[in-house]
Amino acid sequence: MRYPNSNKTFHKKISHANRGMVLEELINEANRFYLENNIAVIYKKPTPIGIVEVKSNDKRKIITKAFFKEPSTLDYSGIYRGKYIEFDAKETKCKTSFPLANISKNQINHMKNVINHGGISFLIIKINDGFYFVDGSYIINFIESKKRKSIPFSNIEEYGYKIDRRNLVQIDYIKIIDKIIGGIKNEVY
Amino acid sequence: MRYPNSNKTFHKKISHANRGMVLEELINEANRFYLENNIAVIYKKPTPIGIVEVKSNDKRKIITKAFFKEPSTLDYSGIYRGKYIEFDAKETKCKTSFPLANISKNQINHMKNVINHGGISFLIIKINDGFYFVDGSYIINFIESKKRKSIPFSNIEEYGYKIDRRNLVQIDYIKIIDKIIGGIKNEVY
Repeated sequence: MRYPNSNKTFHKKISHANRGMVLEELINEANRFYLENNIAVIYKKPTPIGIVEVKSNDKRKIITKAFFKEPSTLDYSGIYRGKYIEFDAKETKCKTSFPLANISKNQINHMKNVINHGGISFLIIKINDGFYFVDGSYIINFIESKKRKSIPFSNIEEYGYKIDRRNLVQIDYIKIIDKIIGGIKNEVY
Repeated sequence: MRYPNSNKTFHKKISHANRGMVLEELINEANRFYLENNIAVIYKKPTPIGIVEVKSNDKRKIITKAFFKEPSTLDYSGIYRGKYIEFDAKETKCKTSFPLANISKNQINHMKNVINHGGISFLIIKINDGFYFVDGSYIINFIESKKRKSIPFSNIEEYGYKIDRRNLVQIDYIKIIDKIIGGIKNEVY
């Protein structure tokens, strides 16, 4: 089994990295670990862009004009224990609540579709220096019943799962999926 | 139930379209049909690109330099009857065989991973004016046992599934998945 990083290297990496990239980088690292150890196959989807202009020279095509598109699905998708997994990573500096403006209506609809078809969809929310796994069903239900613009931090603590950072993987979200779907397949780590 | 297109409009559309886009467009159309009728949630992933330069004006960010990256996964992924689905669409003008140069080694490895974790992975191959659903396990097994550079058309006819074009959806690949996993959930169309 390969360790994705020793703690030492890892912390150094955090302190030098662009703060906004940290959460994404931690999740990519977890996904690499899951893939290398044959635990799960989960990838970040490419950033959706609209290509306006492409030029080609002798060697290759170069995109010379393009723009970022609003994503209508979530950033990470893949497969774990035969189940379809799709989730997004969100970060907020707000300490008292998670503003729902962080998720688009299209993304909420997509989560709903995934869950209705038997998949597992959730958010990993970084708030108050902790990482929380918040199930898509909870988020959808909160939005539809509460008519509020943000989820209070106390709800996230109560209904979400704090993601353990003591394992080999810093954001070991697969362990939470095990809790949700029941049983544990990977005793190995 | 919404019909994605009347046959008339549909054929008109084909004759005007860029020939290379036809297969992709047909699959996108099937996916829209599946989504609108709550049959499956399957999306084309964004094209993977490497962004080199971004400029921003008052209104938005514009990508001014980027290049296309080699995909290491397949183009389409999603969920059907709780199962993870991932596939790619390939087209060949060769009438006698399907050249394996159309799939990268990374893509083959990825197919293998998806299948090992309980997902369904396949190619939709357009060859000799027909559309064939060829299961990933068959392709992997062919590559590993035969050491050949292409799959003969006769093998595709024998071991693949010809995709019926008589239904409401022109490339109704979900019907083939029903055959493979057994049982039929959607009696509606």
